[in-house]
Amino acid sequence: MTSQTSPNSATTRADGRAVDELRPISITRGWSRNAEGSALIEFGNTRVLCTASLTEGVPRWLKGEGKGWVTAEYAMLPRATNTRSARESVKGKIGGRTHEISRLIGRSLRAVIDTEALGENTVVLDCDVLQADGGTRTAAITGAYVALAEAVAWAQREGIVDRKKSPLTDSVSAVSVGIIDGTPMLDLPYVEDVRAETDMNVVVTGSGSFVEVQGTAEGTPFDRDELNLLLDLALAGTSELATIQQQTLEESA
Amino acid sequence: MTSQTSPNSATTRADGRAVDELRPISITRGWSRNAEGSALIEFGNTRVLCTASLTEGVPRWLKGEGKGWVTAEYAMLPRATNTRSARESVKGKIGGRTHEISRLIGRSLRAVIDTEALGENTVVLDCDVLQADGGTRTAAITGAYVALAEAVAWAQREGIVDRKKSPLTDSVSAVSVGIIDGTPMLDLPYVEDVRAETDMNVVVTGSGSFVEVQGTAEGTPFDRDELNLLLDLALAGTSELATIQQQTLEESA
Amino acid sequence: MTSQTSPNSATTRADGRAVDELRPISITRGWSRNAEGSALIEFGNTRVLCTASLTEGVPRWLKGEGKGWVTAEYAMLPRATNTRSARESVKGKIGGRTHEISRLIGRSLRAVIDTEALGENTVVLDCDVLQADGGTRTAAITGAYVALAEAVAWAQREGIVDRKKSPLTDSVSAVSVGIIDGTPMLDLPYVEDVRAETDMNVVVTGSGSFVEVQGTAEGTPFDRDELNLLLDLALAGTSELATIQQQTLEESA
Amino acid sequence: MTSQTSPNSATTRADGRAVDELRPISITRGWSRNAEGSALIEFGNTRVLCTASLTEGVPRWLKGEGKGWVTAEYAMLPRATNTRSARESVKGKIGGRTHEISRLIGRSLRAVIDTEALGENTVVLDCDVLQADGGTRTAAITGAYVALAEAVAWAQREGIVDRKKSPLTDSVSAVSVGIIDGTPMLDLPYVEDVRAETDMNVVVTGSGSFVEVQGTAEGTPFDRDELNLLLDLALAGTSELATIQQQTLEESA
Amino acid sequence: MTSQTSPNSATTRADGRAVDELRPISITRGWSRNAEGSALIEFGNTRVLCTASLTEGVPRWLKGEGKGWVTAEYAMLPRATNTRSARESVKGKIGGRTHEISRLIGRSLRAVIDTEALGENTVVLDCDVLQADGGTRTAAITGAYVALAEAVAWAQREGIVDRKKSPLTDSVSAVSVGIIDGTPMLDLPYVEDVRAETDMNVVVTGSGSFVEVQGTAEGTPFDRDELNLLLDLALAGTSELATIQQQTLEESA
Amino acid sequence: MTSQTSPNSATTRADGRAVDELRPISITRGWSRNAEGSALIEFGNTRVLCTASLTEGVPRWLKGEGKGWVTAEYAMLPRATNTRSARESVKGKIGGRTHEISRLIGRSLRAVIDTEALGENTVVLDCDVLQADGGTRTAAITGAYVALAEAVAWAQREGIVDRKKSPLTDSVSAVSVGIIDGTPMLDLPYVEDVRAETDMNVVVTGSGSFVEVQGTAEGTPFDRDELNLLLDLALAGTSELATIQQQTLEESA
Repeated sequence: MTSQTSPNSATTRADGRAVDELRPISITRGWSRNAEGSALIEFGNTRVLCTASLTEGVPRWLKGEGKGWVTAEYAMLPRATNTRSARESVKGKIGGRTHEISRLIGRSLRAVIDTEALGENTVVLDCDVLQADGGTRTAAITGAYVALAEAVAWAQREGIVDRKKSPLTDSVSAVSVGIIDGTPMLDLPYVEDVRAETDMNVVVTGSGSFVEVQGTAEGTPFDRDELNLLLDLALAGTSELATIQQQTLEESA
Repeated sequence: MTSQTSPNSATTRADGRAVDELRPISITRGWSRNAEGSALIEFGNTRVLCTASLTEGVPRWLKGEGKGWVTAEYAMLPRATNTRSARESVKGKIGGRTHEISRLIGRSLRAVIDTEALGENTVVLDCDVLQADGGTRTAAITGAYVALAEAVAWAQREGIVDRKKSPLTDSVSAVSVGIIDGTPMLDLPYVEDVRAETDMNVVVTGSGSFVEVQGTAEGTPFDRDELNLLLDLALAGTSELATIQQQTLEESA
Repeated sequence: MTSQTSPNSATTRADGRAVDELRPISITRGWSRNAEGSALIEFGNTRVLCTASLTEGVPRWLKGEGKGWVTAEYAMLPRATNTRSARESVKGKIGGRTHEISRLIGRSLRAVIDTEALGENTVVLDCDVLQADGGTRTAAITGAYVALAEAVAWAQREGIVDRKKSPLTDSVSAVSVGIIDGTPMLDLPYVEDVRAETDMNVVVTGSGSFVEVQGTAEGTPFDRDELNLLLDLALAGTSELATIQQQTLEESA
Repeated sequence: MTSQTSPNSATTRADGRAVDELRPISITRGWSRNAEGSALIEFGNTRVLCTASLTEGVPRWLKGEGKGWVTAEYAMLPRATNTRSARESVKGKIGGRTHEISRLIGRSLRAVIDTEALGENTVVLDCDVLQADGGTRTAAITGAYVALAEAVAWAQREGIVDRKKSPLTDSVSAVSVGIIDGTPMLDLPYVEDVRAETDMNVVVTGSGSFVEVQGTAEGTPFDRDELNLLLDLALAGTSELATIQQQTLEESA
Repeated sequence: MTSQTSPNSATTRADGRAVDELRPISITRGWSRNAEGSALIEFGNTRVLCTASLTEGVPRWLKGEGKGWVTAEYAMLPRATNTRSARESVKGKIGGRTHEISRLIGRSLRAVIDTEALGENTVVLDCDVLQADGGTRTAAITGAYVALAEAVAWAQREGIVDRKKSPLTDSVSAVSVGIIDGTPMLDLPYVEDVRAETDMNVVVTGSGSFVEVQGTAEGTPFDRDELNLLLDLALAGTSELATIQQQTLEESA
Repeated sequence: MTSQTSPNSATTRADGRAVDELRPISITRGWSRNAEGSALIEFGNTRVLCTASLTEGVPRWLKGEGKGWVTAEYAMLPRATNTRSARESVKGKIGGRTHEISRLIGRSLRAVIDTEALGENTVVLDCDVLQADGGTRTAAITGAYVALAEAVAWAQREGIVDRKKSPLTDSVSAVSVGIIDGTPMLDLPYVEDVRAETDMNVVVTGSGSFVEVQGTAEGTPFDRDELNLLLDLALAGTSELATIQQQTLEESA
């Protein structure tokens, strides 16, 4: 009897992975001593430090409504990439890409927060890319959830947030998918990302619903069948990530 | 015998439209005398002035490659909205939303441009919202295509671009769709947009392929069936828009 | 017997006007649905959208004095001009010319407002040049008056401002005059403006007093006789503009 | 026989001056060792340090045309005024007033420069207000002319500019005039300036022609007779200033 | 009997000074009429205008603690130097050097202030370099002390600060020292400063203790003996400066 | 007979160290895959990621002189500290402290570089504080040297820099010292740093010469004896650090 591989599995990726296989994922909880929650997350060589800063009080425009606020900021160290980029602090302004990703992370995490249960508290999620190799925004969302969960648990222990009612309504993770040379693939490192005809970032809750679907044709526009294949890969990938998140949070910090 | 309406048609929208009906669309070509191409586009009360500035030469990083460049900038007049917003020029920086939409418009138009056929020429698409009532970014993309087509035709008449080979590979238009009280609807004005549980912007070529799909759960995450219904509405809407674009461009300017 | 024309009238202007003749003036009230007052004003091909945003309350430094505040902001769309200019929001700062004109418009409108009768309310006049062909600042002042008058009437109808005592003490309009090839001329389009030896902007009340006189020798300094001829032209031009403003405001919006 | 004073002279000004009398004027040439030209000018307590920096070469947009360039920058030390103002460098942007005055000074000095005779050289005039008591912009123009004349003489001695053909076509000075309690007055200090109903800055060449007339109604609009009285005062004042400038420049530096 | 000079005195400095000799020092109190305290200080050709602005109240973060605040801002006029520098206000940001020196001046003056005796009052020290020839930061500190002492005396006369308990605990002055061609020297003008292998700024109280020691090897690192020789020179120099400060403050302003 | 400890050693520090004892030091080479050189350095809980980016070419002002350039940028992640700080990129400008430390790091590393041997190449040292507990600038200098040495070795292997002549003339490290409750102590963590009366940062070469001495009296000014004790501690501490640097660089990366 001969072993068989699926056509997909036979596709050669530079790092030897199958097309539906995640890179090695590592999440280190509590990497930062000073923050209420933190996680160093790695998707292969992509390495993002996520911290959650939970403080009492909310921005002025939200005061007195009995609701909390969750927001995020994303940034890259200047030499996270292969060639050094100028610091946005030195340039004196935030670029469009940074803004866009910060907003995406914030929306993604707010999708799994019950702001009333959070009470009038604010969580700022800082996602700083220490090393970049593709998929930094999806790694950031996935790591930020762990940091947020740590911070929420801390606030419950401290009595800042009600111990009986968690403001977390679900977990959330994200992954990139794309079409390379006509083949849909999961979790693209930089070398694949630059070659992708279509690039999609998908944010999914632990229970499998979509929070965000962002697909972009970098080259040829994509059709509905391709869209469906990409969504299949993304749902499988985020399901694995949700399991890893849960395992990480079940370990003692 | 009783007349029957489809369940969708029965849904009451504030402006009396069916759920799968676009707002009245108007495109005025050549609204601006000074630009190489221009269009004033209206989706109901949303009114966007799109100009295309075509100049010879490309940015430094693209020189000598025989390719052109298309980029876009989006902005809103301070009193386009119901309450006045501070000017970004006065605040001294572009906000995240502005950046994000400018980038989206640029990507959408580049998807239908053959940059080699464009030659070493640059087109800047300026989309300024004169009046806002929801769907400004999708109106901007739809109008920008008309302005771009005018500018390309001008460049061909002037001999700046080869008369025999148009750099336009297809047309492109965009529309917003969303789920309101559980019902998927097409082309949301402001009053619907703020109530949508899920909000999606879809950019589609004239031949019906996707350039960009951006779906966001503002409230409850959405499932795959809902995603499919939204895509159905968007494809029907953009198909109508493509027809209107073509008719506009066939009229003498 | 032959008819005679004055030497001035014989002067050939590119657009066929007499030296003391305004370009075709058009004012469209209520162009913007969202603002408390608005006017799209055209001086020939110069086209400026003026909106008046009236809100209750005044800036902090004026609180508790029982007086209102009127201020203005002027800007140009990037492709209002023949060649595209970079956006000031993208450059991250307002240029000197923009600042100067914004201040001029604000002073001009404040000259016809009784701030006590306005009460502790603020009006921001936004003047955005959609198409530029010389005289944008004087068109902006003339249009801003109409937008302001609309906003004041609205506030009186709403009971925000006393219905019996209008805060408008007079009307105000403005026009440019200049000396071209030694001949004083009224209302300069771009092609004349760039050739003018002396350029003057004059802001005049409906009752014929000066609010602002700004004369600049671009080439040869000017003498007192020339100054007097320019003022004669300006007073005649603003008198006509005041009549057009009044007619516009008497029409139902 | 009794001495008589004109009605004007009888008007009481806080500092005892007649209405047509300048404050004590002092110009110290060569106050700064490092600049090619410099002057510390005082109009009463107003004290402005003017330096002229002359360098070979012109801005890129003027290259190869055989013409020079003259520009100016105006600023105030933070504690030049009665209460400290924040530095514009700390605020991160130039205010509208600073921009406007810098542009006025530049235009005024360019009016007396033959840019072809200047050759491809650039002069930057820096006017820094060390102490402010009204009339800083007119003092700046008057002092900047002396600094410019010094720099031009230096460039002629150095052979950078042709010794036989001075690029200076005339001198230029400026003064403020205004109407206070209905009386036109010359050279307003701060206490008069804040009370003026009309405020006018007039820039005049040594030969008595106007370079710039900027009159603003701060309160009641002004009529043509008032305008004429103000211009009379300004012409007399600038004539005196031209004499003082000439005397200063005839002294050995 | 033969006269003897020390080896040091024999060293030829460009301006003929001995290695341990200060440049001519001049301090003019009350140079600015508008500030609560002011001094124009000259170290040879270096000329710095120091003003002290004393206002009631403290920054928000210090409110209610019964303590005052002293801070400083340093800047250079664009043509203080041999070649013109762009204004930081025009560049839109403060450079690193400016920041660093402003902070140094603030710390130095705070070292001799009893903030409780100052009460809830704020002093801003503005040090603007009108002419630069080396040692501008040390001249600024030395002059700022005189301006601060004047402002404190004014506040005591006005009853804003307790007349019986001066908030000044000591005086403070500063000087630069450096090693040139192996020889330690006091008070470096620009021509020496650029050649110094080691450059040190030393801030010393009137009673001879160190407030700040900032030594930098510009070329070869320095050893402990050299450090000690430099400190000897600095202590002698600041002792002389303290005497001049005291004499200046004893004169009637 | 009983053993004796010096009075110093008996002093109780919160972390149990002797007054002349460094915190645990850890240097991880090559922490970042993408940079030419990198080191993650830890002084106790202070953790700084240092990368060296070596590129061919130099800034414009240095071109053609056959010399290289070394510069540095320091920054802190927003949640490196106990309470979150706003990002400087979001604030739109670099603060004074950041500027000052970046300049210090750059000067310190340039002190041990022979720029001629470096050739026309540029090294940018990025020092990003991931976790802060006092002494971040001295840890940054110490770690940056290791990153620089790695990058230089890489450039020699690549033939970009001459293999026979290293541009590194010495090593360099830095440490903080301070006086707490009258006792001089080495290597202050945050809890000691805030209490220090005098705070000093000392940068020393591997051969024991000073590159930089920056001592500041935060409270009482310090005398010469105290200065000497602090320098003794610093020289001992940097000697240890030099040994650790050397050991790290001798390990295979």
